Amino acid sequence: MARPRRPTMFEEFGGRVRARRLARGLSQEKLGFTAGLHPTYISGVERGVRNVSLKNIVGIAAALKIDPAELTKGLRPDPTR
Amino acid sequence: MARPRRPTMFEEFGGRVRARRLARGLSQEKLGFTAGLHPTYISGVERGVRNVSLKNIVGIAAALKIDPAELTKGLRPDPTR
Repeated sequence: MARPRRPTMFEEFGGRVRARRLARGLSQEKLGFTAGLHPTYISGVERGVRNVSLKNIVGIAAALKIDPAELTKGLRPDPTR
Repeated sequence: MARPRRPTMFEEFGGRVRARRLARGLSQEKLGFTAGLHPTYISGVERGVRNVSLKNIVGIAAALKIDPAELTKGLRPDPTR
């Protein structure tokens, strides 16, 4: 069986957004509303299919009432595959 | 005289990149080469005119041998003007 691959940096980032959103009891709709982003976009971020911009990283962190550093700490470039 | 405005989040981010690049004795060309980005792009990032993506934030941090959190810590959305 194949060894499970390491999450990409987008997946790691998205997983953090999702965990913190759920910890705050927010829906994707509510987080999107507060951050000024579409819920579909939030969904894509959480699934790790979006290369989020600095502006949106900061906006999402503010809507989650956390420091943007929490979302980016320790992220490393994805290995070339 | 007008009160100096607060730097935008892009300017704050760019200032950190520049300070850390200079602290490492790197040119924009060298940083760009290591991060796989054009020196003109690095220049725009440092001047605060680029909304850098997560992938490039992580790539620039790796090239500077720092944690991406150093570049994003404490950033806040720009006030609406």
